[in-house]
Amino acid sequence: MQLLYSYQQLFSFSKNIFLKIGCSEANAETAAKVLLSADLRGVDSHGIARLSGYTRLWEVNRINANPNISIVHETPSTATVDGDKGLGLVVAPAAMQIAINKAKNVGTGWVSVKNSNHFGIAGIHAMMALDHDMIGIAMTNASPLVAPTFSVERLLGTNPIAVAIPAGGEAPFVADFATTTAANGKLEILLRKNLDTPSGWVQTKNGEPSNSAAEVRNGGALLPLGGDKEHGSHKGYMLGSIVDIFSAILSGANYGPWVPPFPAYVPMPENMPGEGIGHFFGVMRIDAFRPATDFKEHMDNWIQRFRSAKTITVHQQVIIPGEPETAMENERMINGIPLVGPVVNDLKELGNKFSVAFQ
Amino acid sequence: MQLLYSYQQLFSFSKNIFLKIGCSEANAETAAKVLLSADLRGVDSHGIARLSGYTRLWEVNRINANPNISIVHETPSTATVDGDKGLGLVVAPAAMQIAINKAKNVGTGWVSVKNSNHFGIAGIHAMMALDHDMIGIAMTNASPLVAPTFSVERLLGTNPIAVAIPAGGEAPFVADFATTTAANGKLEILLRKNLDTPSGWVQTKNGEPSNSAAEVRNGGALLPLGGDKEHGSHKGYMLGSIVDIFSAILSGANYGPWVPPFPAYVPMPENMPGEGIGHFFGVMRIDAFRPATDFKEHMDNWIQRFRSAKTITVHQQVIIPGEPETAMENERMINGIPLVGPVVNDLKELGNKFSVAFQ
Repeated sequence: MQLLYSYQQLFSFSKNIFLKIGCSEANAETAAKVLLSADLRGVDSHGIARLSGYTRLWEVNRINANPNISIVHETPSTATVDGDKGLGLVVAPAAMQIAINKAKNVGTGWVSVKNSNHFGIAGIHAMMALDHDMIGIAMTNASPLVAPTFSVERLLGTNPIAVAIPAGGEAPFVADFATTTAANGKLEILLRKNLDTPSGWVQTKNGEPSNSAAEVRNGGALLPLGGDKEHGSHKGYMLGSIVDIFSAILSGANYGPWVPPFPAYVPMPENMPGEGIGHFFGVMRIDAFRPATDFKEHMDNWIQRFRSAKTITVHQQVIIPGEPETAMENERMINGIPLVGPVVNDLKELGNKFSVAFQ
Repeated sequence: MQLLYSYQQLFSFSKNIFLKIGCSEANAETAAKVLLSADLRGVDSHGIARLSGYTRLWEVNRINANPNISIVHETPSTATVDGDKGLGLVVAPAAMQIAINKAKNVGTGWVSVKNSNHFGIAGIHAMMALDHDMIGIAMTNASPLVAPTFSVERLLGTNPIAVAIPAGGEAPFVADFATTTAANGKLEILLRKNLDTPSGWVQTKNGEPSNSAAEVRNGGALLPLGGDKEHGSHKGYMLGSIVDIFSAILSGANYGPWVPPFPAYVPMPENMPGEGIGHFFGVMRIDAFRPATDFKEHMDNWIQRFRSAKTITVHQQVIIPGEPETAMENERMINGIPLVGPVVNDLKELGNKFSVAFQ
């Protein structure tokens, strides 16, 4: 069963919860906006469903509600940022703003972040660049659920990559994807419906192919994009590795099997080599390469050509990355955001705990 | 049947052919070195087997042997380069050098290139950064052989991405992969052996799943990494699209279905929106983020942890990207480079045409 809630209602609730754990007014607003952008864009696993998870991290002192987000190393086009254990939802926009400012000065800006936490959906951070006629890139590492090709051990997170590119009359191109065959949120949906996964999504804890949506809970692993070697999983493994290295080895965060888990009850890994989780952001000014009007004219042409491609069936056209999410955002802003029963119950409990009404 | 040829022998032959079409001494050396790096690293489809193809492009006036490679737009961290119809084998190293110089000055360098041609393997260009303690990134678009998810039309090339990352005592991490399930060269090998492809590599000209290695020759298409939507092909499609946009829409090259074909006998697309094919290069100085010694120590730790992962079988350890290619390079430099009969015959004919002996 699903109930519909207005964006404003969920935004106010989330913001009030962030205020209760001690965030400043500005940080609570930013955190609520970033968190809710996932619900608006249809990535329900990364939105308000995670709100109580963030508060539990705060309870075990793994999140600092008032971080001093600072640049610890920089050049004209780069910075390394210490997130000071802040909410990733707040650290990431601050780091993107640094990248945007550097791009204004020297054409591009590249920021690697340590000592952060889960930052919500990658796409919303990449999209910060769009208003400035800039291309935005965002990626993050995450706790290990993914087995590299040939491995039974889980050594990588779902390590998403997002790239947002401005267009002219057309909506921007926004790609945002986990570097696995399927994101963990997709497994959770199948598990709730008691359905099997397609092949190539997961393996057992011994590395055997599996179709069980419960496999990751049972010690198995998600698989890199491609599924197995024959279908290119070494490419998904390489992509996830690049995200890990850019996010954490450049910055000094934890990497590979040492990335801290999101659930507060899961023990931290031993012998951690860095601080917190890592992100990586990039911003490129369009007019650092060519006039923005020329670029946008050709982006529109690209989008229109791909959208009008001859397709396998008349019922399904080629999808321009970002279009379904933008359509969903517009629809949910008007009609409301659907929440499933367990999430509603969780939010009511959370409201009771912090004395914030959830209607 | 395969014959072994020494690197030096094939290098001299290639260099002499490039001299015969009018390249300068320096450009002929660079082109031969880049071309042969594919043979050394085991990417036989992109090496000396393509030498006669380059000369045929020169014969139809699609390659300028003496290009004036120039910066047409720039900022401190970016440049747009006009390759002046030069060999991609020569244009790419020139563009990477510009990126390296910019990284020396402001921390990173990002170069988009138009009006170029096929540049060999992406990895060798990315690797130029390694000697400077920098991370190198190289990508290129290519003529359309790939159908986006749901499309029957071929709108993208195999659009590879390469990322080279320095390590300390360990060999560098070098990822270099087409954004399709399998590169076209893999199909050619199966075709030669009269073998079928695995599922998810190709589709027929009507968009039906197929296992025929001849499908692309028959008007069918290669598939984006993932194979089909259920297995994440929209992610491969997004990756290929990002490569296309960074390489060609930022620079003013041709994109999507308009990218010129490599075979000189294939007619050029109509209504081309840009100039030549496009590449994109990035360079990041490690010490623009943290001291290089710290970074390398953690890269070594990352590599050792992944290499020693518990694996599914004892016969196959987790592969560190770049290690098999480095091993093959060392082996072939000593024992020679194997060439199949048809390639040997093609090179003999080429030698006859240009009066360069091929023993």
